[in-house]
Amino acid sequence: MSRNSFGTLFCLTTFGESHGAAIGGVVDGCPAGLTVDVSYIQKELSRRRPGQSDLTTQRKENDTIEILSGIFENKSTGAPIAFLLRNEDHRPKDYDELRNVYRPGHADFTWEKKYGIRDHRGGGRSSARETAARVAGGAIAKLFLMEKDIAIKAYISGIKNIHVPLPYTQLDLSAEENEVRCPHKETSDRMRQLIEKTKENGDSVGGIITCVITGVKSGWGEPVFDKLHAMFGHAMLSINACKSFEIGDGLSSTLRLGSENNDTIGQKEKETNHDGGIQGGISNGRDIWFRVGFKPPSTISIPQHTTDIEGNEIVLEAKGRHDPCVLPRAVPVVEAMAALVLADAYLLSTTNRL
Amino acid sequence: MSRNSFGTLFCLTTFGESHGAAIGGVVDGCPAGLTVDVSYIQKELSRRRPGQSDLTTQRKENDTIEILSGIFENKSTGAPIAFLLRNEDHRPKDYDELRNVYRPGHADFTWEKKYGIRDHRGGGRSSARETAARVAGGAIAKLFLMEKDIAIKAYISGIKNIHVPLPYTQLDLSAEENEVRCPHKETSDRMRQLIEKTKENGDSVGGIITCVITGVKSGWGEPVFDKLHAMFGHAMLSINACKSFEIGDGLSSTLRLGSENNDTIGQKEKETNHDGGIQGGISNGRDIWFRVGFKPPSTISIPQHTTDIEGNEIVLEAKGRHDPCVLPRAVPVVEAMAALVLADAYLLSTTNRL
Amino acid sequence: MSRNSFGTLFCLTTFGESHGAAIGGVVDGCPAGLTVDVSYIQKELSRRRPGQSDLTTQRKENDTIEILSGIFENKSTGAPIAFLLRNEDHRPKDYDELRNVYRPGHADFTWEKKYGIRDHRGGGRSSARETAARVAGGAIAKLFLMEKDIAIKAYISGIKNIHVPLPYTQLDLSAEENEVRCPHKETSDRMRQLIEKTKENGDSVGGIITCVITGVKSGWGEPVFDKLHAMFGHAMLSINACKSFEIGDGLSSTLRLGSENNDTIGQKEKETNHDGGIQGGISNGRDIWFRVGFKPPSTISIPQHTTDIEGNEIVLEAKGRHDPCVLPRAVPVVEAMAALVLADAYLLSTTNRL
Amino acid sequence: MSRNSFGTLFCLTTFGESHGAAIGGVVDGCPAGLTVDVSYIQKELSRRRPGQSDLTTQRKENDTIEILSGIFENKSTGAPIAFLLRNEDHRPKDYDELRNVYRPGHADFTWEKKYGIRDHRGGGRSSARETAARVAGGAIAKLFLMEKDIAIKAYISGIKNIHVPLPYTQLDLSAEENEVRCPHKETSDRMRQLIEKTKENGDSVGGIITCVITGVKSGWGEPVFDKLHAMFGHAMLSINACKSFEIGDGLSSTLRLGSENNDTIGQKEKETNHDGGIQGGISNGRDIWFRVGFKPPSTISIPQHTTDIEGNEIVLEAKGRHDPCVLPRAVPVVEAMAALVLADAYLLSTTNRL
Repeated sequence: MSRNSFGTLFCLTTFGESHGAAIGGVVDGCPAGLTVDVSYIQKELSRRRPGQSDLTTQRKENDTIEILSGIFENKSTGAPIAFLLRNEDHRPKDYDELRNVYRPGHADFTWEKKYGIRDHRGGGRSSARETAARVAGGAIAKLFLMEKDIAIKAYISGIKNIHVPLPYTQLDLSAEENEVRCPHKETSDRMRQLIEKTKENGDSVGGIITCVITGVKSGWGEPVFDKLHAMFGHAMLSINACKSFEIGDGLSSTLRLGSENNDTIGQKEKETNHDGGIQGGISNGRDIWFRVGFKPPSTISIPQHTTDIEGNEIVLEAKGRHDPCVLPRAVPVVEAMAALVLADAYLLSTTNRL
Repeated sequence: MSRNSFGTLFCLTTFGESHGAAIGGVVDGCPAGLTVDVSYIQKELSRRRPGQSDLTTQRKENDTIEILSGIFENKSTGAPIAFLLRNEDHRPKDYDELRNVYRPGHADFTWEKKYGIRDHRGGGRSSARETAARVAGGAIAKLFLMEKDIAIKAYISGIKNIHVPLPYTQLDLSAEENEVRCPHKETSDRMRQLIEKTKENGDSVGGIITCVITGVKSGWGEPVFDKLHAMFGHAMLSINACKSFEIGDGLSSTLRLGSENNDTIGQKEKETNHDGGIQGGISNGRDIWFRVGFKPPSTISIPQHTTDIEGNEIVLEAKGRHDPCVLPRAVPVVEAMAALVLADAYLLSTTNRL
Repeated sequence: MSRNSFGTLFCLTTFGESHGAAIGGVVDGCPAGLTVDVSYIQKELSRRRPGQSDLTTQRKENDTIEILSGIFENKSTGAPIAFLLRNEDHRPKDYDELRNVYRPGHADFTWEKKYGIRDHRGGGRSSARETAARVAGGAIAKLFLMEKDIAIKAYISGIKNIHVPLPYTQLDLSAEENEVRCPHKETSDRMRQLIEKTKENGDSVGGIITCVITGVKSGWGEPVFDKLHAMFGHAMLSINACKSFEIGDGLSSTLRLGSENNDTIGQKEKETNHDGGIQGGISNGRDIWFRVGFKPPSTISIPQHTTDIEGNEIVLEAKGRHDPCVLPRAVPVVEAMAALVLADAYLLSTTNRL
Repeated sequence: MSRNSFGTLFCLTTFGESHGAAIGGVVDGCPAGLTVDVSYIQKELSRRRPGQSDLTTQRKENDTIEILSGIFENKSTGAPIAFLLRNEDHRPKDYDELRNVYRPGHADFTWEKKYGIRDHRGGGRSSARETAARVAGGAIAKLFLMEKDIAIKAYISGIKNIHVPLPYTQLDLSAEENEVRCPHKETSDRMRQLIEKTKENGDSVGGIITCVITGVKSGWGEPVFDKLHAMFGHAMLSINACKSFEIGDGLSSTLRLGSENNDTIGQKEKETNHDGGIQGGISNGRDIWFRVGFKPPSTISIPQHTTDIEGNEIVLEAKGRHDPCVLPRAVPVVEAMAALVLADAYLLSTTNRL
């Protein structure tokens, strides 16, 4: 299996660098006969697009998708679906001074140690720009899952120490997204203020995204190494800046007794969901929900000590365009990766029985 | 790729049910020429073995390993290494009354929904007994990693609300393990008391295991989907009862500003390690550390409401032998899975450059 | 993917050396609910067993299979099915004098160059004894395919220059097998005489096995890299001593014009099958048939020049037990590998459409 | 693993249809630091390009490659290398009348049975145009192998019943290619005449390509399922119209005695190579050589009986542009696939030993 691919049967391969010609991907294994609405993919890309609000980087990318193959008269044919997003507002020259510098928190140092050569322009392959290809591939997975009446909805549940005070079950997740992508108005306002203030300070903040999936029937996911939540964890932790993953109650589960934590079976009115809809790695038919923690973005305007590639200590002050907080743009990426996991798990689950 | 296998080049396949004839595994891809000390594998198995102390289940399994292939005159030959652990103290009859019952928190319900048939005896394939095969396979990976001067050490850092008050850097991880597998004496004693009390109550507790890996050079792990911490996350979340994964500071990272959280480069004396030794999915040469949260075991003696497979509501009172807390026995499983991830990442990393 | 595994969804992993403790395998991905008749597997093993007639090696192996997991009350559960064949009549001492010798035609030299270490006893992992695990795994695949009304029947169509003079369509493939496993009586007798004479001379002969598969519906196989006949070719060429593979008319197709070679569509009464039941890599619903060429076994009693591992030229005269012709015992191996390809192709084909 | 990918570590994924927007591919796993000369890739594509001589289809495609990613300042970076070939002379309208017709010998019928939907334009995904992406990916593999001093050279050794009368060892494979791509002048002339005459008749011919690989050291290839020749067989049989594969002497081996067929070890001056440079699936350091049989192309101008998708019998007379013989253009495809197999086998072989 190639290392830039994700999935066994429903498989996305991505390619492209931040300031190269283009980024893109190939979805292989999408079942034939799916109506692929390209405008839906485009809409998902817009949710991740830079420059969509003053909370995000001002890089201007339209992220207009071009489908190259695999769709004939609006339907998937079973052939691989390749797509392309040309880089438009790339300014490789902006990065000339970073050619020999290791930016703290970034993959500059580690990529160079691994490969001995590095496209330094905007992080090259390690740029979060790569996630646009995930959103496009994930949108196709979402279209497939909609046929199974599955809905995937992520939102920001925490920015730094500001958290939504209610569980997801008490929020209206169907509401129109605001710029922060937090469905709790009062919290959302506070988050916005924090992000703006952080931006003014040239600093950055992280937080938590909660993802809720409804409609998954029991029986998806594999019982041993590829437990459904292990696949979600793998998928989420592969997103840039992600540092933690909790399925269902997650860390809170470690603080309870078994008698308090076991999800009820039967007694519908008392139904609990501490386990997040998965037991023994297999979906149980309840909502699937998990939380994903993101560190503050590594690029800040505040001067930082670092070294160049020759080991000389220098002071770095970022000048480029960057996000003070990645979470609003990470929400569609979380959903996309969740969709890829589920589309694959569904296809695998169809082969489980005689 | 089969679903009961883990790893691309260094690959473990496991098989076996809790109360079937045997459990075992096949390690494929272990480089030839490795001296395989079977007594070391046996010692690792003893750390996971049931009945090793009064804190664990009283099931009596010697877990004596039989190597079937792949080793010739004490050295690996490049051929697959298959091994077997016969189930000795299996008492399938003990489980007759559970044949038609769904135990809360367990995979009984979900397995049946997925496969339509279930080996109900002690959880069958979903039993944590499967992890013995992981420990054996992981021990071979550990032997391989020792050749690279890598050490993997996990310990219990929290049981319910009792946490070790010091970071791992201030603990002596090389000390002889106690029964709790917590290296902080005072905390360990309190944990022991809590576990014993919980056992008396017929209840169960969870907690957190911290894993520390030293000696990994920079350049291991893949930059996109198979980021090194994503592989660790996948591996850990595939362990029974695991509910959360944090690389490095994990959730704490979400509470800091970028200027506080970025790991320094250069200035050795001020070196930080918030990111847990990995940037952009690739190891940076510092210690790798992560935390794994386990829920309290689902099997408790306290009566619980559930249903049988016909949907009738019943009250279940577990009688079998079970662990009030899985963490002491999960420590070697965490280490084993970490070793499998690293052995594979190392082999992959050797093919990265011309 | 590990290198001792075959198949994506229906996957067999094998292990074991010729004169080690045991050989065996793990079938992962067998759908749950399949009735697994162990006596059928045993019967298939008997067809490959050494010592079954005077045409084969006199090594005495009962090849009694022990199922270790994955089957509960005679049905597959979806868990991996592991099985074991203990080596009984192994005589590692017989091979002491071969420890430092490279036998011509065998993998002795190449294994040592690759791995730097070698289990020299009877070819170790490279022994055709490994194929017993394939027959066992393939028998499970066959049981699965029988549920889809698929029959796989291989036979010897040529030994050296003695060939069956009729196409498979004019043979009775359902007849009881004779020792040669050639369904054409007159040819079979001549083959037997040739094999016996060759044995007396201490020499060996090869030949051709034809495999015919009925009942495969249209739509199996993948259109690009994993064309159905490419998978059959991969599978067959992985069998010891196999040197050629032809799908359908194979080499004969290269001698015809397109107007003579294109298979008809429609006009049932004039239906041809030059392509062997596959077009564009996908089954078309007609019989699938292919031919597999085997070289004469490398082990002969006639003295041969070779070298030891230090490069000294020596004369080697094989004394062990060996087959003058592998084809009678290879017939069930060909069928087993065909079954593994088909079981996998079938499962994959179920995920092709919405 | 996705089905439009080939290779484990060095992996090519292809996409695109004959008359869609573009075809292309992604090479993942190419080691970093390789100098990638795009003009070399272009030159290889020219060898496969339609319209290069009057022996091939007159479709006019420049097949100008655009590299989208993975190369920075002329060197591979370890990131996936994506490339694109726009379809220029596509005339989808030409195929309107074939929308509902099954062309004999083609994948029209089988694709439709498999997927229920079909891009009928020029064979869609099943067109041999897909192989252009293989040539581009294979060219990168060739560049990598050149660093290891490996040369891959294929040529036409037979067209219908006209065969080169000499073994490859007596031919000058380094000579400039002629249009037929047969290095034996007299035979080449006869082949050209046959192809031209066949074209005039509106018919088609097949033949045999021999591929010779020099410079592979001993130790490449895997000993069980992924034997080096099994991988070559898989690769070759996945090329459109390929019907047979022989490693080394192949079918001729079945006609010899063991005492005649075993390759010598030692006695350099008497060295034989019946096995084609591979024993037990592992390269032995001698030349690797194999032969690949292609059937005559299915598209002919001579009227043929077939049916439409409703089962009505019709007479089909091809009008489009097509090749009377695919072999001259298949030569670079054979080389490309061989290069992909070897690049992968090499990388795998580097992880075999401690």
